Amino acid sequence: MTYQHAPLGVAVIGTGRMGSDHVRRIDEVISGARVAAVVDIDGDRAKAVADRIEGCTAHTDPAAAMASSEVDAVLIASPGPAHEAALLEAFARGLPVLCEKPLTPDAESALRVVEAEARLGRRLVQVGFMRRYDAEYRQLKELLDGGGIGRTLMLHCTHRNVATPPGFTGPMMINDSVVHEIDVTRWLLGQEITAVQVLRPAPTAAAPAGLSDPQLVLFETAGGAVVDVEIFVNCGFGYQVRCEAVGERGTARIGEAHGLSVDAAGRWGGAIAQDFVERFRDAYDREVQAWVDATRRGETTGPSAWDGYAAAAVCAAGVRAQDTGGRTPVLLAERPELYR
Amino acid sequence: MTYQHAPLGVAVIGTGRMGSDHVRRIDEVISGARVAAVVDIDGDRAKAVADRIEGCTAHTDPAAAMASSEVDAVLIASPGPAHEAALLEAFARGLPVLCEKPLTPDAESALRVVEAEARLGRRLVQVGFMRRYDAEYRQLKELLDGGGIGRTLMLHCTHRNVATPPGFTGPMMINDSVVHEIDVTRWLLGQEITAVQVLRPAPTAAAPAGLSDPQLVLFETAGGAVVDVEIFVNCGFGYQVRCEAVGERGTARIGEAHGLSVDAAGRWGGAIAQDFVERFRDAYDREVQAWVDATRRGETTGPSAWDGYAAAAVCAAGVRAQDTGGRTPVLLAERPELYR
Amino acid sequence: MTYQHAPLGVAVIGTGRMGSDHVRRIDEVISGARVAAVVDIDGDRAKAVADRIEGCTAHTDPAAAMASSEVDAVLIASPGPAHEAALLEAFARGLPVLCEKPLTPDAESALRVVEAEARLGRRLVQVGFMRRYDAEYRQLKELLDGGGIGRTLMLHCTHRNVATPPGFTGPMMINDSVVHEIDVTRWLLGQEITAVQVLRPAPTAAAPAGLSDPQLVLFETAGGAVVDVEIFVNCGFGYQVRCEAVGERGTARIGEAHGLSVDAAGRWGGAIAQDFVERFRDAYDREVQAWVDATRRGETTGPSAWDGYAAAAVCAAGVRAQDTGGRTPVLLAERPELYR
Amino acid sequence: MTYQHAPLGVAVIGTGRMGSDHVRRIDEVISGARVAAVVDIDGDRAKAVADRIEGCTAHTDPAAAMASSEVDAVLIASPGPAHEAALLEAFARGLPVLCEKPLTPDAESALRVVEAEARLGRRLVQVGFMRRYDAEYRQLKELLDGGGIGRTLMLHCTHRNVATPPGFTGPMMINDSVVHEIDVTRWLLGQEITAVQVLRPAPTAAAPAGLSDPQLVLFETAGGAVVDVEIFVNCGFGYQVRCEAVGERGTARIGEAHGLSVDAAGRWGGAIAQDFVERFRDAYDREVQAWVDATRRGETTGPSAWDGYAAAAVCAAGVRAQDTGGRTPVLLAERPELYR
Repeated sequence: MTYQHAPLGVAVIGTGRMGSDHVRRIDEVISGARVAAVVDIDGDRAKAVADRIEGCTAHTDPAAAMASSEVDAVLIASPGPAHEAALLEAFARGLPVLCEKPLTPDAESALRVVEAEARLGRRLVQVGFMRRYDAEYRQLKELLDGGGIGRTLMLHCTHRNVATPPGFTGPMMINDSVVHEIDVTRWLLGQEITAVQVLRPAPTAAAPAGLSDPQLVLFETAGGAVVDVEIFVNCGFGYQVRCEAVGERGTARIGEAHGLSVDAAGRWGGAIAQDFVERFRDAYDREVQAWVDATRRGETTGPSAWDGYAAAAVCAAGVRAQDTGGRTPVLLAERPELYR
Repeated sequence: MTYQHAPLGVAVIGTGRMGSDHVRRIDEVISGARVAAVVDIDGDRAKAVADRIEGCTAHTDPAAAMASSEVDAVLIASPGPAHEAALLEAFARGLPVLCEKPLTPDAESALRVVEAEARLGRRLVQVGFMRRYDAEYRQLKELLDGGGIGRTLMLHCTHRNVATPPGFTGPMMINDSVVHEIDVTRWLLGQEITAVQVLRPAPTAAAPAGLSDPQLVLFETAGGAVVDVEIFVNCGFGYQVRCEAVGERGTARIGEAHGLSVDAAGRWGGAIAQDFVERFRDAYDREVQAWVDATRRGETTGPSAWDGYAAAAVCAAGVRAQDTGGRTPVLLAERPELYR
Repeated sequence: MTYQHAPLGVAVIGTGRMGSDHVRRIDEVISGARVAAVVDIDGDRAKAVADRIEGCTAHTDPAAAMASSEVDAVLIASPGPAHEAALLEAFARGLPVLCEKPLTPDAESALRVVEAEARLGRRLVQVGFMRRYDAEYRQLKELLDGGGIGRTLMLHCTHRNVATPPGFTGPMMINDSVVHEIDVTRWLLGQEITAVQVLRPAPTAAAPAGLSDPQLVLFETAGGAVVDVEIFVNCGFGYQVRCEAVGERGTARIGEAHGLSVDAAGRWGGAIAQDFVERFRDAYDREVQAWVDATRRGETTGPSAWDGYAAAAVCAAGVRAQDTGGRTPVLLAERPELYR
Repeated sequence: MTYQHAPLGVAVIGTGRMGSDHVRRIDEVISGARVAAVVDIDGDRAKAVADRIEGCTAHTDPAAAMASSEVDAVLIASPGPAHEAALLEAFARGLPVLCEKPLTPDAESALRVVEAEARLGRRLVQVGFMRRYDAEYRQLKELLDGGGIGRTLMLHCTHRNVATPPGFTGPMMINDSVVHEIDVTRWLLGQEITAVQVLRPAPTAAAPAGLSDPQLVLFETAGGAVVDVEIFVNCGFGYQVRCEAVGERGTARIGEAHGLSVDAAGRWGGAIAQDFVERFRDAYDREVQAWVDATRRGETTGPSAWDGYAAAAVCAAGVRAQDTGGRTPVLLAERPELYR
């Protein structure tokens, strides 16, 4: 162990659903860290959170929180449009950041973050693609990297949610949901995505008016792999994330049913998770723990700002592909040396 | 039961792999039928088969076999180009036919068969789409027809073979393999396929030179469903046919592993079938039994000549789509009254 | 093929649930056999069945049916107490017999049948232990015989029925239900059962008054294996038959859920069979077909009269063990040469 | 949250396999606790561990460690014979204790601990039955408590280890392995175990000379439930813990295969865990975290000293049952008020 002994003082920016869950996680679950400051544009809300934690201060301005001598690192969980400014402020102070996805709301701003970090010459950002910390995805990654099923030719992905909240739009199916499969594809295959296409079946009656749900999203990658993603955000019956990798010598699947199985009333089977918190709780814990541990060692690991930018660029192509129904190329900036 | 008591005298045309297997099936497995005649352009081969069966005659000409007073019905298992003539001869004699797929090698000739049968005004042809007789597909069909998961929005299909024989071509991936998913799609959904698209990943190293294997084939249907089919004919590890129907209220899957499961040497799991005979043996038995039973009742049921034609038309579009990489519409003739 | 061409004329004795199902099976499913005669003590019932089948005669006396020149073989599906007389009559005429289990109602009469057949010097009886024809049990047997998991140390068996008919008693749990596990144990391990013990949990509220249901039945075998059987005849939720063989190098299981799987309404899973007909339909078909084929070849294969006797002897010990709660040895007569 | 802010200072007694793993867990994984002292009779070993942790002292005497003002709680992971003295010392100081199982090596000493704690009038001891913290067991417990499958009639348990270390004895199969099923039975059913019986199949060739492995252990409970446990400590192929609860209205199973599944080389399936660390890592984490959290709230929860005593009493009966092969009653002392 080369950890510093004192716990890492974290400023959590944003105390909405994700932010307050991260506050709880750092306070109760994560070893070696403490919530030193919370930030929300709603100052009362920030104060209510801070008051429950000994030694935690409340702020409405991220920069003020980062200026505190108690703050060693920053966790950004505010709405996407606020990310860029907070990231640049953290860069200015040399503070490590765990930034919830998306890195920023669009590819242009994400590229600015990438370029700013590249100019620093060292990584400070870990992006919140938490599936990379899920036990099953890690098993799959390890299998693929070890050559267990040969070169990967295709991925078949399924991503289902019970229902959408009010205001959920078609582009959000790409930007908020499929973005996970975008990162998983890039991470599992180690290849950039080069083109996107979207097929739209006749929508389910359960879809809100105007939302074409489900959709079949198709990726091509730089290495010639083809990926299909069923995104179905009003499937009604559960939260399901599955992935099958088809290799030259075999296939591997994760996300199938497991755990408690019941035989009763003429049926066998079990319960399906109802949301991502239930399915990925451990992944979130591992993600934040990994970030705390790396930060205390003085390192930055995990999904990088480049990963955040690349996801944003593919999302942009995906949203265009939803409109055209045709194949849409993805154009990436040159990858800075820092991320190679 | 209103069956006639005497067993149905069947002329089997073609004594290759499929034909000789059907001879065995009728001789040993199927109740209520007997092999009355066999036909092969190789007369010695026909004679060798006939000599093993009491009361069975050998022929080189299908018409001669059909002329026998012992022949009540015809099973066509000769190569595709010979099908049209044999079908028309059976029509001329009013003989029921079980015709192995494809109905004929192309959509034009298949349409001629459809029109000839439509002129007869009664169905004589059952096409050999034996998946309709598979226990799991029937369960799935029953579930979908009963509305158990609401309207079907998508199908995800997987079709894998261990390896291809010499001479296997890209169009054969559509015409000989995906043709089953074409029929399954039309049968499960009760909708015609309206467009086809084919994506081609970088091929597996196990693919013969020049064969783009695997491929991802996409269908759109008249009712707005989207279907994806992984066709992978040199997957190396087994024969797998899976289908997941995604409905408005749930999804249903068939083709998952079952049967004997072994825990040993650090692994759990079981054996994967190695060819279609192992996977679909019972379906073939049921198919032929259903045909024998219907024929003895004076009826024709099961996949019709129209089903054979429609599959041929979609195959033709699929082969074009392999070349262009784009979306290819399927144009069907008007459906004759007989098949409505 | 060395089959005689003419179909095997079968006399079916007993036209209750099992008998009439066998009549249907031979008439519609089984190749190479026909129902030549039916016997029932209720003459009107026999006649009603016979009238539906061309060339089938009706009888109230098994001997009269066996005397018919149209009868080549006998299928006994009458109540157990009538089996011995019918078997001895068939022996007197040299007719092959497929005898539904139990061979006879008790070990003493079963031993008399064994001795009578042994005196004949050739096997005529196949006992209706149809699990030996079930596809999964055959896979398991093949694995064990091939040494795939080493010597078998234990079997864990589960045998569940939805509910019992009126009049079902504790001894019937052994004689009618566990008798299948008795045969499976002897067949899979190739060892006689040497002792039985029965544990009785507090009964389910769904059990009829006086029926101690479920029970845990324990076998020891001549080779030192230990077998536990959960017999639960009012489990309420389905018909389940499972078996796990624990070997020196691994374990193997059959009877787990398979087939159509549905994800809906927050649950994954599938349907559980509701009775043995649904679960073992194919086994019954294969059993009768195997008997018809062997008989036409002039052979007798499958479970022997000795197997029927041994099962009866273990059942007797099991019923005693239900009463005493202690370990009850099984004493078998010496095995006649014919069955070695 | 009413947690005190300062982390809980824990003295870890014993730095063998379990102890050093707990040191690591508290140092790196557990939120809200720190290792304040370590104790080992090997003073060099204790010092080596302590030196890696800031503010941690090393001791050879548990009492000396407990006397430190930095120590708020005690985790006992020394060999079983040392437990009683350490527990009584902790009681004398009013320190909460997480005591690895067994509570003490035999029922008599365990009862002395129970009586001593009962005299204190408040619970200080949580026993290390970590399966109660496993996610799947908790799901099962919740299902049973909620009445989801009616009253529980039977449990079928499987407990398999790859191989035993040198010196492993028959009584250790009960005291070290089946003791988990003893606790699980008592916890899941909320009933004491009243009798034990052990059946011993012919041992596997992989068993060390003199070790009768596997065994089938049978429990009866105060509520009339029957429990069978396969304990197989040289199964060779993996570490498996399964449990099926059979209820009046259905059954529920945990411990079945899940996670990554691979189809390749003619087989489907996945990897089996190779030891308890892999299978129950999360349970250990949750166990210690639960203890830290409760201790900081001033409470003692989880498995009690009574649970440790009852397990010891059943183990004693089980070891006698191994010798006699007969049914052995379990006699428990009267349960003190504190544990009701």
